[in-house]
Amino acid sequence: MPTVAVDVMGGAHGPEAAVQGVAAVSLQSDIDCLLVGDEARIQKILESTAYNPERIAILHAAEAIGASEEPRSAVRYKRKASLFVALREVAAGRCAAVVSAGNAAAALGASRRELTLLPGVRTAAMASVYPRAAEDAGQDPLALALDVGATVRCTADELVHFAVMGSTYARVISRVAEPRVALLNMGRDPLQGDAVLSAAHRRLRDRRGLNFVGNIEGHELTSGRADVVVCEGLLGNIVFKLLESVATMAVDRTAAATPRSWRRRAGMAIMAAGSDGLRALADSSSYGGAPLLGFEQVVIQVHDGSQVHDGSQAQGGSQAQAIGNAVKVAAKAARDGLIPALKAALADD
Amino acid sequence: MPTVAVDVMGGAHGPEAAVQGVAAVSLQSDIDCLLVGDEARIQKILESTAYNPERIAILHAAEAIGASEEPRSAVRYKRKASLFVALREVAAGRCAAVVSAGNAAAALGASRRELTLLPGVRTAAMASVYPRAAEDAGQDPLALALDVGATVRCTADELVHFAVMGSTYARVISRVAEPRVALLNMGRDPLQGDAVLSAAHRRLRDRRGLNFVGNIEGHELTSGRADVVVCEGLLGNIVFKLLESVATMAVDRTAAATPRSWRRRAGMAIMAAGSDGLRALADSSSYGGAPLLGFEQVVIQVHDGSQVHDGSQAQGGSQAQAIGNAVKVAAKAARDGLIPALKAALADD
Repeated sequence: MPTVAVDVMGGAHGPEAAVQGVAAVSLQSDIDCLLVGDEARIQKILESTAYNPERIAILHAAEAIGASEEPRSAVRYKRKASLFVALREVAAGRCAAVVSAGNAAAALGASRRELTLLPGVRTAAMASVYPRAAEDAGQDPLALALDVGATVRCTADELVHFAVMGSTYARVISRVAEPRVALLNMGRDPLQGDAVLSAAHRRLRDRRGLNFVGNIEGHELTSGRADVVVCEGLLGNIVFKLLESVATMAVDRTAAATPRSWRRRAGMAIMAAGSDGLRALADSSSYGGAPLLGFEQVVIQVHDGSQVHDGSQAQGGSQAQAIGNAVKVAAKAARDGLIPALKAALADD
Repeated sequence: MPTVAVDVMGGAHGPEAAVQGVAAVSLQSDIDCLLVGDEARIQKILESTAYNPERIAILHAAEAIGASEEPRSAVRYKRKASLFVALREVAAGRCAAVVSAGNAAAALGASRRELTLLPGVRTAAMASVYPRAAEDAGQDPLALALDVGATVRCTADELVHFAVMGSTYARVISRVAEPRVALLNMGRDPLQGDAVLSAAHRRLRDRRGLNFVGNIEGHELTSGRADVVVCEGLLGNIVFKLLESVATMAVDRTAAATPRSWRRRAGMAIMAAGSDGLRALADSSSYGGAPLLGFEQVVIQVHDGSQVHDGSQAQGGSQAQAIGNAVKVAAKAARDGLIPALKAALADD
């Protein structure tokens, strides 16, 4: 099994959650992990945690980039940070994938410095995984959206690359045979939007190996129409931050408004039956992270929720589980050949 | 009191809701209305409805533009449609405002043909009114967003005009003394986004008479940070369609998941306490419509919900009430001098 390098120092609440998440994975699977960070602190956490020592190694890093640190200067000056050390392990081929649970903008900036773009790709994309209604039995309950903030505006070329990469990721990781790819736009008409969007629509429709289902509108995002949603970073960033916050608000308010006695009596049936999709949307622990796509290496970013939530939700067990899931996704991507599949799909022009 | 021209033919369910909405207003207020549409049908609906005949007149129109009709060709070929007839009444100064409850794209297209842009304004904006958490006591529970689909991409100039017009509208209609204006962007940093957004940020900050509070991110839209949210049409269209659909989903699911017996016992306390904001968001009848801003005339568009909802929610009493509210808003805008206020604010460069 491939080794996954995990930057354990980036989270908003220190290395505890990341180390515990990896420790749990070491007992459940044959995935080898390299914990990158403050060796003494990692050692101390491991001492009070059940784990399989055959599956876990530690690589010391002298610095760490904080979750709320200004990403540009952190990337510029903190080259000894655990994030950089982990990325260099992957760039040098000593590890097969990296998992980052910290500052997403720093992870992107550091990846741009340390990693190589795939042939033909001009810019990397940050993906977001989000749950939506499944239309068919067997359809994955999660959809992938990209880009959600690595870019601002995009060319039609870049949108097509995002579509090809997202579709390939969904095929490899979710095992969807022909992922439905849609272009986020203000109407279904192929000529809707500006020249970039209509050119992207035409090229996506004509692209071999892509199951393009057309434009998708804002109110259709939570439907099962698309497995992969393609958009420029400005749009994706705003839309998916909004989607997450509204879902969190709905779940929190419903819980807060239900008297405790009822909740006990009802066995939380309201929540279970009524808000499954919304709950999943608000619960980043079930995601397993989302990829940075466009590099020759596998990078999985765990959403720490600190931008949207008040932080408390992402703490402890939930965040540890999210990191464990991300490690499994990273190992799967490495084992099942995500990068060769991306290269083949991008070359198939 | 000024006369409001109401296009009663545009709704997805015929003229009933619009005529009944206006009939109710005629009994509650001293607003004069001109019902524009098929005279015989309007007459027939009025016969079985309570109304004040001193407040209501009818203007016959031979054609109608359907709610789901392709807007471009409808605007091109149906010049005798009730929408055009109503707009010409306002353009000629015989009415003080127009209310449209039909096809929003057709209303925009027809307004562009029949009405005049305000001095200095290069393009009109379509606004959307949406509820969000109020931060201060006394803060209006509704915020205004524009543009939500009249444009695709915008220049910094156009975004500044949207801000000035939205702020003026909030001041006149909501009586907010200094509406908080924010720019929708992917981060709070003034340099975030592309050159257009950072230029718009700088110019909004420096603009006299504008209470600019900076950039607003996707997850902050439902907070009370801004009374007026400014964005290009592509972004606004997708974001506000999504916001509405997620809110509808949350409200519908919570209602569906709550057994009827509980709901009765609880007097709908869950809904009332927990999902007020979401419920309001999903209930277009409480809005009173949103303005098309940029013309020398007042145009209020009622959201018929047909794009997002299944149609059933927008029927009957709810839609009639929405149209009644829109008529009141239109009359208020005319009476309180929205257009002179817009001219003054735009000139204050």
